[in-house]
Order: sequence, then structure tokens, then C-alpha cells
Amino acid sequence: MDDVEELKKLKARYFRALDSKDWKAYGNVFAEDCVVDLTRAGGPRIEGREAFRAYGSSLTIVQSVHHGHNPEIELTSPDTATGVWCLEDYNIWEDGHQNHGWGHYLETYVKLDGLWYIQNMALSYLRIDTECPQPALIAGKDRTGHLHGQNPAAGNWN
Amino acid sequence: MDDVEELKKLKARYFRALDSKDWKAYGNVFAEDCVVDLTRAGGPRIEGREAFRAYGSSLTIVQSVHHGHNPEIELTSPDTATGVWCLEDYNIWEDGHQNHGWGHYLETYVKLDGLWYIQNMALSYLRIDTECPQPALIAGKDRTGHLHGQNPAAGNWN
Amino acid sequence: MDDVEELKKLKARYFRALDSKDWKAYGNVFAEDCVVDLTRAGGPRIEGREAFRAYGSSLTIVQSVHHGHNPEIELTSPDTATGVWCLEDYNIWEDGHQNHGWGHYLETYVKLDGLWYIQNMALSYLRIDTECPQPALIAGKDRTGHLHGQNPAAGNWN
Repeated sequence: MDDVEELKKLKARYFRALDSKDWKAYGNVFAEDCVVDLTRAGGPRIEGREAFRAYGSSLTIVQSVHHGHNPEIELTSPDTATGVWCLEDYNIWEDGHQNHGWGHYLETYVKLDGLWYIQNMALSYLRIDTECPQPALIAGKDRTGHLHGQNPAAGNWN
Repeated sequence: MDDVEELKKLKARYFRALDSKDWKAYGNVFAEDCVVDLTRAGGPRIEGREAFRAYGSSLTIVQSVHHGHNPEIELTSPDTATGVWCLEDYNIWEDGHQNHGWGHYLETYVKLDGLWYIQNMALSYLRIDTECPQPALIAGKDRTGHLHGQNPAAGNWN
Repeated sequence: MDDVEELKKLKARYFRALDSKDWKAYGNVFAEDCVVDLTRAGGPRIEGREAFRAYGSSLTIVQSVHHGHNPEIELTSPDTATGVWCLEDYNIWEDGHQNHGWGHYLETYVKLDGLWYIQNMALSYLRIDTECPQPALIAGKDRTGHLHGQNPAAGNWN
């Protein structure tokens, strides 16, 4: 087994599951007692596979693209490894709002019964560009419009 | 021979040939009896290396960038393999029109006389952003302007 | 030692050092007598690790992202290798001016005392998109504003 190649494919499955919204496959790349630290990316710190699977599946992103680049993977024992990955992500919400980000993952991995899992994952960003190219006003649709104001054409203001 | 690394370099040559418009090298990464299915990307289904080489070389794209990410390659026999690749592409046409896309390739490979080739390639997109940042009106230039209207300054309308 | 994987990690360290502005680590990926040819990218040709480290560290880019893709690495002897990498970079200057580029690195590597270094690095671009999304007027700040005009609100013109 080429452990480094297996770890690259593990992370590839993570990205593919995330962008295809396959939350079962998404959870399965993590160890049961994983720790995911999104605090440096403005998010929570989450413990456990099921909790992080639930967090991921709750995202209301309509479309997302996540690509990982230039991995630096080091085997630290036959059953453990560390990794650094570059990230580019592009997330489009239902209201047209977009985030385009560039950052790094800092990770550890564990091998259990011959299969690799993500044990710890921390994410930070170098930069996030935010856009709202179609200023959204979807009044009445999941109350989204209320976040952005009221459509003057939809009625009077009183 | 590290077959997985050879398959990554095969796909790297595909991308480099496509973006450098080296259509001879482009064709040579495919098996003679390859099948390329672009139907999920709004394109045709093409059979055979020469037919697909001709299709590629007919593209009127002025500039293109195609990068492949996070391959998941599995050897299915000593001479066959499957692969999934993420794609980001950015294509700029002569009239200024642009496509920026993110998707996946689903592929099979075959090894013939010690060299790997793409046997089947199917492409689908998660998202394509389209822009025309310089609304183009190049009247008289390869009839491109006629696709977009007529330049008022170029003559009368009758 | 998997030399191809080591060479990919060498280039990964180059990218990570560049974007984290760790100029010591940046210099250390190059051989002492390296040659870096940026002439096809509108830059200089620089000889020697220390000269190129100084060049890099003088960049006034506030934020940068550099990702390498689809490497084609060939071992040419036990101690030498060649490589082609695709590049996507995104550079943001202090005045808001941005470059977003796509190109290729052409490189040679040398192994000294068991460690790989970049011996020759040449860079060319397929395309560079330039933007100034926040037309910058930072009068008085490092004289940057003077490059773009004078803020009418800042005082009189005499």
C-alpha cells in the first residue's frame, strides 16, 4: 500500500463528497473521535464524526467547489501521519451571495484496520473575497428576502 | 513503473497540450478507439482519437486554462485503470466572451505496449460562470460581430 | 525515498513559503547557485539563492496565493530531475491593485546530500487578468496615492 497516495485519495473523497453533498461519504472520511477546528476560519470547533457530519449537512450552500493543492504529507508511524494542504473554495448561497477563499488545512491522520481517516483538521484562510453579484431579493422564499430589505414593487412600505 | 504516477502525468500532458493548442500531442494521450462523452457538459459524444483530435483543434478559443485536481485513480488490472478528476477551466473566446467552469472527469485508461492512454472520458460541470467583460463588437473580423449585432458606426442599417 | 514525491513536496514548500512570506524557508528550496528566469513573465533573470531570496522578500504584495498543478517530473539521473508545473497565482497589492495569472514553470532539480533543491526555474504566463476593484487612493500612505492621483477631499489643489 502506498500510504501517501491513499491519504491523497482520502482527501480527494472528502472534497468530492462535500461538493456533491454526499454527507454519508463525507462523514466516513473522518475518525469517529475526530476534532475539526474551524475557529481560525470564523467557525466552530467540533468533536466527533457524527457532530461534524451534521454540521456539514446543515450548510445551506447551493453550490460549492473545494479543491486541495500541494499536499505535504509525512508518515509519523505506520498508523499515523500529518498533512498540510492548500485550499481554494468557491461557495454560492441560495440568495446569490458568494465566497471565494484561499487557505490551508493542517491535518493529522490515523490508520484503523488498514484504512486511513482524518483525525484532526484545522482550517485557516489567507483571503476570502465576498461578492453578491445578483443582489438578492427573493421575498417570501424561506424569508431570505427579509435579510436584504423589502422589494419596493412588492407592496407599500406602511 | 509507478502506474498511478504515469496516469497523473498522462492527464497532465492532456491539460498542457489543450492549453498550448498542441493538437498532435492532445490526440496522442487518447487510445485510438477512445470514447469522449461531453453530453453532460452540453457537447457531443465522440468516438475515436482522430475524431476527437479534430473536434479539439476546431475550437476557436483564443486562450484557455484547464487544471486537474484531486485524482482518485484505481488500478483495475495490470493494463486497465479508472480515474476521477476535478476540473477548473477558464476559456476566453476571441469576442471577449468567457466561461469559467468547475466539474469532474470520469475516466478509464488502458495500457498498450507499456504506455497508458485515456480510453473513456466523460465530463460534467458543477457550475459554469459566464461573462462578457468587454461586450464585443468586432465588426468585420471573421464575421464575429454579426453574432452580436451590428456596429452603428460601421455604416447604415438599411 | 520516493524522489518524485519529495520533489512535489519541495515545490509545495516553495508555494507555502511564498504565500506565508517566510523568506528564509523560501530561499532554502533553491540550490545556492540556482538560476531563476522571469524574463518571459516580464521580470528579471536572477542568479544565486541569496539574490533571489532578496528579490522575493522585497515584494510589496500584501496577500498572495500561488498553487501548482499537474506536475510532470522526470528523473534524469539519481541526483537530477526536470519538472513542468502549471501555476495559478493571485496577488493583491496594498493599493488594491490585483493580478490573477495562469502559467507554467519549467524547472530542473538537483539532489545534494540527500535533499532536493530547485536548480533552474523559468516562469511564463498563458494569461494575466488585472483588476483594481477598489480604485485606490491612499494619500499619504507610503506615497501610494501619488501613483493614482490626489484625493479631492483631502485638501485644496494648490
